[in-house]
Amino acid sequence: MPAEAKRPRVIIVGAGFGGITAARALAGHGLDILLIDRTNHHLFQPLLYQTATAALAPSDIASPIRVILRRDRETTVIMGDVTGVDAARRVVAVKDTGEFGYDYLILATGADYSWFGHDEWARYATSLKTLDDAGTIRRRLLSAFEWAESLNEPKEIARLLTFIVVGGGPTGVELSGSIAELARSTLARDFRRIRPGAARIVLCEAGPRLLAAFPPRLSDYTARALASLGVEVRLGAAVEHIDARGVSVAGQRIESANVFWCAGTEARPAAAWIGVDAAHNGAVKVRPDCSVPGHDEIFALGDVASLADRDGKLLPGLAAVAVQHGRYVAKVILCRVAGRPPPPPFRYRNLGTLAVIGRSRAVADFGRLQLRGFPAWLLWSLVHLFLLAGYRNRMVVYLNWSWAWFTYGRGARLITGASHGAEPTTAA
Amino acid sequence: MPAEAKRPRVIIVGAGFGGITAARALAGHGLDILLIDRTNHHLFQPLLYQTATAALAPSDIASPIRVILRRDRETTVIMGDVTGVDAARRVVAVKDTGEFGYDYLILATGADYSWFGHDEWARYATSLKTLDDAGTIRRRLLSAFEWAESLNEPKEIARLLTFIVVGGGPTGVELSGSIAELARSTLARDFRRIRPGAARIVLCEAGPRLLAAFPPRLSDYTARALASLGVEVRLGAAVEHIDARGVSVAGQRIESANVFWCAGTEARPAAAWIGVDAAHNGAVKVRPDCSVPGHDEIFALGDVASLADRDGKLLPGLAAVAVQHGRYVAKVILCRVAGRPPPPPFRYRNLGTLAVIGRSRAVADFGRLQLRGFPAWLLWSLVHLFLLAGYRNRMVVYLNWSWAWFTYGRGARLITGASHGAEPTTAA
Repeated sequence: MPAEAKRPRVIIVGAGFGGITAARALAGHGLDILLIDRTNHHLFQPLLYQTATAALAPSDIASPIRVILRRDRETTVIMGDVTGVDAARRVVAVKDTGEFGYDYLILATGADYSWFGHDEWARYATSLKTLDDAGTIRRRLLSAFEWAESLNEPKEIARLLTFIVVGGGPTGVELSGSIAELARSTLARDFRRIRPGAARIVLCEAGPRLLAAFPPRLSDYTARALASLGVEVRLGAAVEHIDARGVSVAGQRIESANVFWCAGTEARPAAAWIGVDAAHNGAVKVRPDCSVPGHDEIFALGDVASLADRDGKLLPGLAAVAVQHGRYVAKVILCRVAGRPPPPPFRYRNLGTLAVIGRSRAVADFGRLQLRGFPAWLLWSLVHLFLLAGYRNRMVVYLNWSWAWFTYGRGARLITGASHGAEPTTAA
Repeated sequence: MPAEAKRPRVIIVGAGFGGITAARALAGHGLDILLIDRTNHHLFQPLLYQTATAALAPSDIASPIRVILRRDRETTVIMGDVTGVDAARRVVAVKDTGEFGYDYLILATGADYSWFGHDEWARYATSLKTLDDAGTIRRRLLSAFEWAESLNEPKEIARLLTFIVVGGGPTGVELSGSIAELARSTLARDFRRIRPGAARIVLCEAGPRLLAAFPPRLSDYTARALASLGVEVRLGAAVEHIDARGVSVAGQRIESANVFWCAGTEARPAAAWIGVDAAHNGAVKVRPDCSVPGHDEIFALGDVASLADRDGKLLPGLAAVAVQHGRYVAKVILCRVAGRPPPPPFRYRNLGTLAVIGRSRAVADFGRLQLRGFPAWLLWSLVHLFLLAGYRNRMVVYLNWSWAWFTYGRGARLITGASHGAEPTTAA
């Protein structure tokens, strides 16, 4: 590193909503900022299911981190795997690269879905957190129809055309609704030997209702809306087993070549790096200013922070929380560096939550005001279009959406990836 | 297969320019058409280098085969690997699927680059023929800059920022020019520790000039234009060795983490399937009506056919040849089925050839008329925009191009693919 050792160095690990927001807010104040991420892109995760179901291309929902931070000349971006933190020496270790010293450290590593102790299921099921995950799901989805078209055995065809989505949160709802629309509308006219519309889509939720974070009224609406799209919604249906040929759910065996996993949530291992107390889901238990007890110079935010709201409820794993955390932590650090008194403790401003069910249906919860159906969908599409990073992305996504809307076609229906012949779904 | 055994069955292997054109031309005449391809998409190969260099997304240059042929209700599309042909029983064998009988067979499997007997080089160098190849090159290109930014050793940084392109044909010219522009313009402002503009790009051609199929005057112009973009052009420079750390070219060792291969050409193994005579490059030696000697019902076209023009010169491996072949073979088959006399022997209509060097420079050869520089580039961009399959693709590509033109930015700069940490280029 250059010899400008005077400027306080802030290291941010993770370029999700929290990390990017913190980086932007810290820039321009004479700090030396280093952002480390495992990938080269910031991902607009709320639209990831659209890439998984071939409605949007990867480049529609992701931007290179360096492009987002291009104008922040004090900010260096590094693509690398953080393998540990030495809090005593104040250094972050990056695989194959070396160590980087910090004065302040922001942990913004996010969360993964949780396999509930069955990590072996990851061999057969694909979860949906990264752009690579979305690519794998798209490949499996589209390949299943392709393989079914080439075969003659009805049983194997039925297995290929059975899609299991595990987890009735927003992602599971969005994904299953989207697969149903892909099968019943987009692909309907494109095959000669199979009927894509006959595909079976099963959404399994272990709890008693979908979208548990929403009011029950909206959960019921969501279940009905999914059923009308042709999704079999199974509540109280815990997955007991997954293998290469299918799943066991609530005592019943379902043969399926396509199992997609959107259940549970588990913070990425930042707590272990610094050897501090973790909450049940692995998140770092932080103080009201998002700092880590015993380490005033380390902060955790978003999904990797465990922090209760004023009413004692843990904050949800939403992009909005991560963004507000990121802005807040930047403020805390800037006050500290400038010798100003710290800002008041973090308070989450709930702007409402949205989940989309399909073409023209969604649910929205703003506390007292609740929306569902087309008005909610319209709001959802406007909000997401405007939140998307970058003007160019907005243009292309708008073009893709309006095109898909009028034609029921999907622009990104390509099967790529060297392994597409070697998935566990291969019709052997 | 359904019991409509009366309709003559035509099997087409390969959905490149030749196969797709034949399929379109055969449709609507009461035939039973089966198109088999290893992928689910038709690829607009002339723009593949733009996807490899992050200017266009994969979905900009490829369309699902089923979408292109959606309206041809007599045409069935199957994604599968053809493993052989039994010409005596008239069946095509598809891996993991079974056999399909035919009355007429069209081999349109295309060509690959040739490793000149050094297949082990494929471990270290990436060629550029498929969408997956383009994804791999993009990942290697962009990762090289990312890794260089994270390191401190000048030698390793120099190795990561050295790009070797092997083969001075159109693809090698386009790729090396495009890498130079990526490094010197697009990425120039995005790094803090390295200077992307200092990247070294070497184009190695074993022969005495670039673009051997063009007039020497245009070859010279191309070499000068590439040099002005900062590409080191090496003529008479055969590659002697490639390993994980670099290459040996014309007796000289160059350390490089990025070797891209666009040299030689070798037809895919259709001749071996039917056990007939192959030309030097593995293509099937066909009769003037594109049929295979000894097998009136089998045709080969495009890169997998070896056929001389009236003047005795072998036809070049161009999309235009494949398209004209495809249209011609469809005519031959339709005449045969209808009991009409066959059309006159195939004659290639040379519409000219184009190669692009970079932003606003190209060469064009129309026999007597030759263009170079901006006029050739303008022509090139118009022609390619209009040839791109599908209105939607044209819109998106136009948007991407004009955006890139004005901003020097590139929309598809994402590093994806599960293996992106495990490339042979990893800075260990």
